[in-house]
Amino acid sequence: DFGAARELDDDEKFVSVYGTEEYLHPDMYERAVLRKPQQKAFGVTVDLWSIGVTLYHAATGSLPFIPFGGPRRNKEIMYRITTEKPAGAIAGAQRRENGPLEWSYTLPITCQLSLGLQSQLVPILANILEVEQAKCWGFDQFFAETSDILQRVVIHVFSLSQAVLHHVYIHAHNTIAVFQEAVHKQTSVAPRHQEYLFEGHLCVLEPSISAQHIAHTTASSPLTLFSTAIPKGLAFRDPALDVPKFVPKVDLQADYNTAKGVLGAGYQALRLARVLLDGQELMLRGLHWVMEVLQATCRRTLEVARTSLLYLSSSLGTERSSNVAGTPEIQELKVAAELRSRLRTLAEVLSRCSQNITETQESLSSLSQELVKSRDQVHEDRSIQQIQCCLDKMNFIYKQFKKSRMRPGLGYNEEQIHKLDKMNFSHLAKRLLQVFQEECVQKYQASLVTHGKRMRVVHETRNHLRLVGCSVAACNTEAQGVQESLSKILEELSHQLLQDRAKGAQASPPPIAPYPSPTPKDLLLHMQELCEGMKLLASDLLDNNRIIERLNRVPAAPDV
Amino acid sequence: DFGAARELDDDEKFVSVYGTEEYLHPDMYERAVLRKPQQKAFGVTVDLWSIGVTLYHAATGSLPFIPFGGPRRNKEIMYRITTEKPAGAIAGAQRRENGPLEWSYTLPITCQLSLGLQSQLVPILANILEVEQAKCWGFDQFFAETSDILQRVVIHVFSLSQAVLHHVYIHAHNTIAVFQEAVHKQTSVAPRHQEYLFEGHLCVLEPSISAQHIAHTTASSPLTLFSTAIPKGLAFRDPALDVPKFVPKVDLQADYNTAKGVLGAGYQALRLARVLLDGQELMLRGLHWVMEVLQATCRRTLEVARTSLLYLSSSLGTERSSNVAGTPEIQELKVAAELRSRLRTLAEVLSRCSQNITETQESLSSLSQELVKSRDQVHEDRSIQQIQCCLDKMNFIYKQFKKSRMRPGLGYNEEQIHKLDKMNFSHLAKRLLQVFQEECVQKYQASLVTHGKRMRVVHETRNHLRLVGCSVAACNTEAQGVQESLSKILEELSHQLLQDRAKGAQASPPPIAPYPSPTPKDLLLHMQELCEGMKLLASDLLDNNRIIERLNRVPAAPDV
Repeated sequence: DFGAARELDDDEKFVSVYGTEEYLHPDMYERAVLRKPQQKAFGVTVDLWSIGVTLYHAATGSLPFIPFGGPRRNKEIMYRITTEKPAGAIAGAQRRENGPLEWSYTLPITCQLSLGLQSQLVPILANILEVEQAKCWGFDQFFAETSDILQRVVIHVFSLSQAVLHHVYIHAHNTIAVFQEAVHKQTSVAPRHQEYLFEGHLCVLEPSISAQHIAHTTASSPLTLFSTAIPKGLAFRDPALDVPKFVPKVDLQADYNTAKGVLGAGYQALRLARVLLDGQELMLRGLHWVMEVLQATCRRTLEVARTSLLYLSSSLGTERSSNVAGTPEIQELKVAAELRSRLRTLAEVLSRCSQNITETQESLSSLSQELVKSRDQVHEDRSIQQIQCCLDKMNFIYKQFKKSRMRPGLGYNEEQIHKLDKMNFSHLAKRLLQVFQEECVQKYQASLVTHGKRMRVVHETRNHLRLVGCSVAACNTEAQGVQESLSKILEELSHQLLQDRAKGAQASPPPIAPYPSPTPKDLLLHMQELCEGMKLLASDLLDNNRIIERLNRVPAAPDV
Repeated sequence: DFGAARELDDDEKFVSVYGTEEYLHPDMYERAVLRKPQQKAFGVTVDLWSIGVTLYHAATGSLPFIPFGGPRRNKEIMYRITTEKPAGAIAGAQRRENGPLEWSYTLPITCQLSLGLQSQLVPILANILEVEQAKCWGFDQFFAETSDILQRVVIHVFSLSQAVLHHVYIHAHNTIAVFQEAVHKQTSVAPRHQEYLFEGHLCVLEPSISAQHIAHTTASSPLTLFSTAIPKGLAFRDPALDVPKFVPKVDLQADYNTAKGVLGAGYQALRLARVLLDGQELMLRGLHWVMEVLQATCRRTLEVARTSLLYLSSSLGTERSSNVAGTPEIQELKVAAELRSRLRTLAEVLSRCSQNITETQESLSSLSQELVKSRDQVHEDRSIQQIQCCLDKMNFIYKQFKKSRMRPGLGYNEEQIHKLDKMNFSHLAKRLLQVFQEECVQKYQASLVTHGKRMRVVHETRNHLRLVGCSVAACNTEAQGVQESLSKILEELSHQLLQDRAKGAQASPPPIAPYPSPTPKDLLLHMQELCEGMKLLASDLLDNNRIIERLNRVPAAPDV
């Protein structure tokens, strides 16, 4: 207990007690509050109990051990809660008169610490809110564990699919694998399914390297986790549940207390409104990034497909019948015709793939347009300003109440004003909660639903693009094989022709080529044009480079 | 003048004056301050003059019209400055005793308004700080012009090459072309050279569409302008120049005034330190984005080049001599051999291009690594905290001085403490300015130099990639042409062979094909394998899609 302290002599044990009883170790509580004769001497670790209760109180705004009606109403139950608490539990409450004791192993929903920090804090609380001295940590371990938290770095991870922002506490010297495991623990997304985006781009994290390679994150610029998890959104306690009601009559102290409670709930609503709006922004921005990444994939696949198509078209040839009537069948020509027909089929598949990607690009673009509109709506949202405005007015009245409660009584006029203030205050609180519920929560929930739908479209599009990408790759591989066979056959045919002619030459003069050889004149012209174009471009770019270099030599010093 | 006001009757003209003389219209100044007999009656527009001086004072922290020694020291010069001011000038000063009057047509460097807002404000100031009643605006125009500013939206534009953040004021209904022109005015980058990035990705702005399509920007998430302009960095006035010195003796009022001046300069240093650090962050982030965009270009070009290479390799054939000794030359075979040799050359060029892109990717990656390290350094920078810490301590002493100056005198001990405080205050100010100069300014300037170098590398890399991309495209076009010719020739040859054989068949039995026809067995096997693989993949993806769909059907509602 921190209420009063004096230094103990080396051979002296702590025996007396003084302070707030809710923070007392059960042994001290037994003696000081329940006045039971007890011969146990207290070790210094009883202070750890008080630290534990204090930490819990600071983290949650409420005490960990609460008998029905409050800690001071039922002291025997209070003693039972603290002594019967199972190992690992960090809080206990009796919710009904003479009801059973209920244990908590986690911090409550009202705790404003991040889940990441909670997961670090809970084991500490469990080990210092431990009545058995043998199991309870000593100060050394307590300091070691709390220092360990302080030495950790926070990495902000926004799970895009779930729409939840996480704070991941790791050591800078940990590997990415450790980080991924910590993310797994908080998001239930297995490391092999974790994909990350940062500032608009995919970032590949190699599990074996140090976590120091993760860029510096903030709550508004987090590492964005892309996975197939389903939307959860933020879980929170409705502040309306914590709004006390004014008593009908004028009671300066009670009115002040009520106003304070209402104001607290109002500020809680403001905080939540901000978090909900930030969440919407993160959802929309993350989606925007994923869209851009998908668009890049589209562009890449499309270019490959188009290149393939051009190459294919150049070797398809005409569909001229390969057999002159009445000639013996040549096996190779038949095969060549089959192969060409196959190439034509592949070209059709590739062309369909291209078409398909173009359509995907269009639907992605229209979804992006939708996102831009949604982001505009988020930026134009004024609910936070409205809540802030109510709070400002409420705060003004609250300060009046704070002054009034110190006075012995109010005159008639002052009392009328006080009554009016109470009414105004209640109206403002109602308006505030209405804005929170109808503007913030409902919009957030609607945005979660839309987000879920959009994420589904994104996943479908990505799978679809993967499929199309595989098709293109498969077509390419097959087409290349077919082309190779075709090339071999045609070469073979040329060889045969040569041999035939060689034989013929020995017998008869060589036949005059029946067709003029196709001079690649146009082709040469085209090549020359291209070369000229390239040379011009190259010299332009060289000029540019020279200009840039020259400009950069000008020393860059601002006016100081 | 706002000092005192009363309503004028309809037929009454304003004749008397009362207030701070620095804000007076020259006509009123002449009568009220210089006491010259004057028959001019004042129109209501004299108030606009005072509004102008007030606006100037608020925007810059100093008065617009300053004779040597200050406005109250030389009233004749003050009158001359205000009456001789040329049209368009918004400020005038006499810098030496009896020196010439110097005119300003822009706001000074100490003005903390963005250049964008300054460019909106200056014409207003010029038109209301106008002594000729005929030229001076009326209230109607003044209100119209100021309302026009208020109706504009701000778009934050960070010129990456120049390392300067701009605030561009346009109307939401303006077109992108108007926006680009406004950017041109502030950055000197012509609209056709303006390329933009937003949140990591290129964003193409169509000049004819509405500026509403520009995403919502903030100072920390601006639209990033990419151009070939050279680094300028932030221009600012060194706060050290504005630090007054303490008088040696104890003078409570003077010490208080000095402390106030020093503190003001300190806060200015803090503000600048933040701006300089934010500037570094924006430079590094913008570069990171450009790198990512370049990497995407690399990937795309590389895939195209590789696809082309595979197609080419399949139609190169073997380098078997096309002529059997002692046979008549066949023109087509000669051309085919030439075309193939050309294809081989093209394949080599493409292969070199691929190699080249791979090397570019590596150098981009190492530059990205460098950027990550630089960003870490920026995030670890503690200079702002150090300056803040000095300011907190200085503020504490300043408050002491503020209290002391109201007292009649100090006792011996108090005076000793006051002297010590003065010394401490000076030390803190020195330390603050040292941190600002050595940590903030020097680091910023070093980062500007590095930024310039990196921007040069980025531009060179981009030009290089464009060149390589053109090479790849040119190779592809040429290769496709060559392949087409080759295909025609081989077809022609086949046709000739057929005709030869047909002739031969009439004379002699067809020769048995000397080689076994190349059965495309391996090829078929390969195709089948690929098809199987594709089917498996397709069914996997379908399964995935089904799972996602099912999961998404779970309604997404957070606990409220």
